[in-house]
Amino acid sequence: MTPIEIALQEARAAAARGEVPVGAVVTDAAGTVLSRAGNRVEELHDPTAHAEILALRAAASLRASPRLPDCTLTVTLEPCPMCAQAASFFRVKRVVFGAYDPKGGGVEHGARIFNAASCHHAPDVIGGMREGECADLLRAFFVARR
Amino acid sequence: MTPIEIALQEARAAAARGEVPVGAVVTDAAGTVLSRAGNRVEELHDPTAHAEILALRAAASLRASPRLPDCTLTVTLEPCPMCAQAASFFRVKRVVFGAYDPKGGGVEHGARIFNAASCHHAPDVIGGMREGECADLLRAFFVARR
Repeated sequence: MTPIEIALQEARAAAARGEVPVGAVVTDAAGTVLSRAGNRVEELHDPTAHAEILALRAAASLRASPRLPDCTLTVTLEPCPMCAQAASFFRVKRVVFGAYDPKGGGVEHGARIFNAASCHHAPDVIGGMREGECADLLRAFFVARR
Repeated sequence: MTPIEIALQEARAAAARGEVPVGAVVTDAAGTVLSRAGNRVEELHDPTAHAEILALRAAASLRASPRLPDCTLTVTLEPCPMCAQAASFFRVKRVVFGAYDPKGGGVEHGARIFNAASCHHAPDVIGGMREGECADLLRAFFVARR
């Protein structure tokens, strides 16, 4: 499976737990998966428990290092400002995301974290990877909750 | 002790552990301290382990609720974009901070998180509380490390 497929799998697992379906994976330069996670905000009563934060922390913990300069963070949804800034702090090389998030996104929208003067490491960004599938998963989840 | 004095105490304790001296405290409407924390980035190999995130997560965990709508987050340094967005997600009523951070701050500088379109809850903000003491602590720490 490719990283975005693994992230999609994590997103589906999050939906099954009643969480907003977002999944993330951290891979190294060779493409080896260091960590994978889905959203656990509800379960942990913790709005910082976004998939990206959980995956980044797990990868750094595995390496016993706060920096992941050779790594790619792949996530099904455009990261929010919190997660975008975290990706910058972890010094990831690249951020790949699926669906764009005009309301809450902080990479291509809103705070545009990587373009702000408060950002001292801007990863490469690729948006729109498997966009349709990633967005459909979110749409179906919110339709079902209405 | 006032909240900023408790935060200063946490910042000094962080410095003693070799961490960038930032401390934070979460208080409820009555002024009761729900949680207090200092920076633990180095210890935990985790750049998300900022004082604010640790204190917010601890307060929410104590309440078994991801929202802290009656609470004030008091911190010795202007929150970075990650922590500012987290404070918004936790729905805190107020953010009080000590020293301004023109380089990395995300409230009055840089990404200005609470003013961005990606921010759906903007806490009240009071900056510059015991600014001199808070800034001196950081300055002394970085001078000693040079």
